[in-house]
Amino acid sequence: MSQPEFHLSPGYSITVRLEYPNEPGMLGKVASRIGEVGGSIGAVDIVQTTSTYITRDFTIYARNEAHSQEIVRALRQVPGVKVVKVSDRTFLLHLGGKLRVEPKIPLRTRDDLSMAYTPGVARICEAIAQNPEDVFNLTIKRNCVAVVTDGSAVLGLGNIGAAAALPVMEGKAMLFKEFGGVDAFPIAVNTQEVDAIVETVVNISPVFGGINLEDIAAPRCFEVEEKLTALLDIPVFHDDQHGTAVVVLAALKNALRLVNKELEPLRIVINGAGAAGIAVARLLLRAGARDIVLCDRAGTLYPERTENMNPYKREIAQLTNPRGLRGSIHEVLEGADVFIGLSGPGVLTSEDVRRMAPNAIVFAMANPVPEILPEEAWGIARVVATGRSDYPNQINNVLCFPGFFRGLLESRARRVTEEMKLAAAEAIANLIKPSELNEDYIIPSVFDRRVAEVVAQAVAREAYRGGVARRRRRRIASL
Amino acid sequence: MSQPEFHLSPGYSITVRLEYPNEPGMLGKVASRIGEVGGSIGAVDIVQTTSTYITRDFTIYARNEAHSQEIVRALRQVPGVKVVKVSDRTFLLHLGGKLRVEPKIPLRTRDDLSMAYTPGVARICEAIAQNPEDVFNLTIKRNCVAVVTDGSAVLGLGNIGAAAALPVMEGKAMLFKEFGGVDAFPIAVNTQEVDAIVETVVNISPVFGGINLEDIAAPRCFEVEEKLTALLDIPVFHDDQHGTAVVVLAALKNALRLVNKELEPLRIVINGAGAAGIAVARLLLRAGARDIVLCDRAGTLYPERTENMNPYKREIAQLTNPRGLRGSIHEVLEGADVFIGLSGPGVLTSEDVRRMAPNAIVFAMANPVPEILPEEAWGIARVVATGRSDYPNQINNVLCFPGFFRGLLESRARRVTEEMKLAAAEAIANLIKPSELNEDYIIPSVFDRRVAEVVAQAVAREAYRGGVARRRRRRIASL
Repeated sequence: MSQPEFHLSPGYSITVRLEYPNEPGMLGKVASRIGEVGGSIGAVDIVQTTSTYITRDFTIYARNEAHSQEIVRALRQVPGVKVVKVSDRTFLLHLGGKLRVEPKIPLRTRDDLSMAYTPGVARICEAIAQNPEDVFNLTIKRNCVAVVTDGSAVLGLGNIGAAAALPVMEGKAMLFKEFGGVDAFPIAVNTQEVDAIVETVVNISPVFGGINLEDIAAPRCFEVEEKLTALLDIPVFHDDQHGTAVVVLAALKNALRLVNKELEPLRIVINGAGAAGIAVARLLLRAGARDIVLCDRAGTLYPERTENMNPYKREIAQLTNPRGLRGSIHEVLEGADVFIGLSGPGVLTSEDVRRMAPNAIVFAMANPVPEILPEEAWGIARVVATGRSDYPNQINNVLCFPGFFRGLLESRARRVTEEMKLAAAEAIANLIKPSELNEDYIIPSVFDRRVAEVVAQAVAREAYRGGVARRRRRRIASL
Repeated sequence: MSQPEFHLSPGYSITVRLEYPNEPGMLGKVASRIGEVGGSIGAVDIVQTTSTYITRDFTIYARNEAHSQEIVRALRQVPGVKVVKVSDRTFLLHLGGKLRVEPKIPLRTRDDLSMAYTPGVARICEAIAQNPEDVFNLTIKRNCVAVVTDGSAVLGLGNIGAAAALPVMEGKAMLFKEFGGVDAFPIAVNTQEVDAIVETVVNISPVFGGINLEDIAAPRCFEVEEKLTALLDIPVFHDDQHGTAVVVLAALKNALRLVNKELEPLRIVINGAGAAGIAVARLLLRAGARDIVLCDRAGTLYPERTENMNPYKREIAQLTNPRGLRGSIHEVLEGADVFIGLSGPGVLTSEDVRRMAPNAIVFAMANPVPEILPEEAWGIARVVATGRSDYPNQINNVLCFPGFFRGLLESRARRVTEEMKLAAAEAIANLIKPSELNEDYIIPSVFDRRVAEVVAQAVAREAYRGGVARRRRRRIASL
């Protein structure tokens, strides 16, 4: 995962403990040296001082791992400065993992034990055995989601396997709790065979109220999702597909309001025909779009294409590209209103954007390096969005999945419906008032706490409307 | 699960909200009525008072569900008293389940996100992909245990299935955290086929540092444990077997010190040839016992027996019953030094105990109603222990499994060894000093916080000694 040269990230930050003579000017020398080699200084803490020496911890943001090592080398060369210790903050943060499982109530007395465990717990078991739906009331199933991966398509890292994918799944579970109040647990499965993944998830499903599929390579992810949806009576949601589709639709709705265009006549080009690209195309069609062209490395998708196809590409090819365009992404961008990139870094040039229709909309969502850097598209396209936090208009799935599952769990939905996705997108878009809407603000911040709430309400409402909600009313246990 | 008539349990407690005239003497009337029908009053809280009326919440311990209903009926008949609400405290406590999954660190800023999630997390994934053992450092695998059941032998309830078993697994996970500091997550599998259970657990094993099997019926549990142990490089421990065996051995060691007998010449009778009975026999043999007789409903086990056998009973029959005894439990107790009951309620009579050797030791561990009530054995046997918290000498697995897994995880053990079990039993027994040891104190309290610590140390020590520890030294992430 290379980063653009200029981008300093806390993800590559280090804490360096330095010991140096307690003399005026020394801190300035150290700070200057860090600046000279391109590091950015965060917190500076005093560890210890004596009359002659001082020890300080410097938190320094670097561009990447090599850069952080370069900074340390530079510090070692400052006369009088001793590098006592270098800690990689991201590694420190990950020691022992990022999640813990906690009792909701303490077990300090025999009374606690006899209610939460034996003998009291036996009555709870019997209640569920007699009325299986009670598992939603009386166990963690009410609020618990499995974050399931096979490690086959992790971030930009590719097929790194289940164990190496765990830190991402733990991070996802953190986001579930922090933004949606959902208890999520990482399930990284040690197999990449569709039927084995499906059987495993079905077998462990009793404890979960929903399944979030994550970082599973296409086209396997489609098959896994289809089979699980058919076999389970709890909702299954592949976030890379549907979470992405929902937030893209939300951003597009507001971008269209801004440029005063309608979805139906719009010419939309999607680059990337993997899980996300196909899911975005499907949801945009559902929302009313009529002219979508999907591209991948082999060019546009069309029904007769044979190169690099799979059943899912064939299916979406039947539903898109109404003008039968052939050619590369560069060719089909001519006159397009919208570019949606779900592919790789640097696919697009300023020239490509210049050939788009007036008031062009560019969503360059490849992560961490987008299809085109906003600097190169600003002033040509009217609206530019990326997946990154350091530019305006961050289109990030965290705007969707925590609230989406909150709504699924609150309504005890049996499955995910298309109406839920459309309603979630509308809810996210509507958080930005017409008076607030502008080229740099088409989508709420990931830290906007209202987002999960309105998404949850929209999803739960559609669950009831669509007849897939299981929860009728709030049940209170009493004799 | 019937309870003996006299036993009032918080597991069957209710909170009754009563409204009655705010007059002297009313509280006394209410309290007396509760006492008359055999209820025991816990907390009494004021909810609201006016000049004429008062509303109070009474927490009342009952014997069982029917008894709590009887108490409510009695209260309804007290003149002037209105029953506003009745809450079952055990059900209330279980609403929404008993566990939560929490981030260890908050995700409040973009900096937090960029270290715990993208882009920083990618470096952690890469580190694990390059060095797979790092999954023990950098993910929750370091401290995480799966509590796995198929719901086929839950408490005294039998085969109630995966979902209905969940409250017990959640309770177990609470005990893991509260007593051992271990993050445990309930995995209730929706299948009761050995190979499907095994495949499922193997597939989800990347996130776990250990597997605790729970409430799986014999003989399936033996096969599941054997296969998982062969396939996984993390320890697998069936608590119903080995946890029970460890605590029984610990209690027996101290009982023998008290009566001044040795293990080797001892005549031991075990009633119950299920998972626990066979595991106890195996561990006692390993500890040096030479004369063990196992009994089940068909009488003693011996190699030639054909009735109600399975491969595991056949195997243990070869190793036990050296005097070739035949007959029922009542017959073989003649002259026995030790009775260990892992069977059902009321199997033994005072007469049976009277025929045992002098200074007899009786562990009547059926739960909740033991093989013989202590009242009927006291004065005949020298030492009496049960699995219950309301008698002296509670032999409870919670003395073992939290510390046992703590030790397995600390040493990153690849598997469980017999030496670990023996060492754990010795550690538990040794917590009671010779000066403290007496007939009513042969085993520490489940709330004795030293227990998990000494068990963990003993297990970790044996992991290193036996060459199954993976952890060499404390690793600190640094550049």
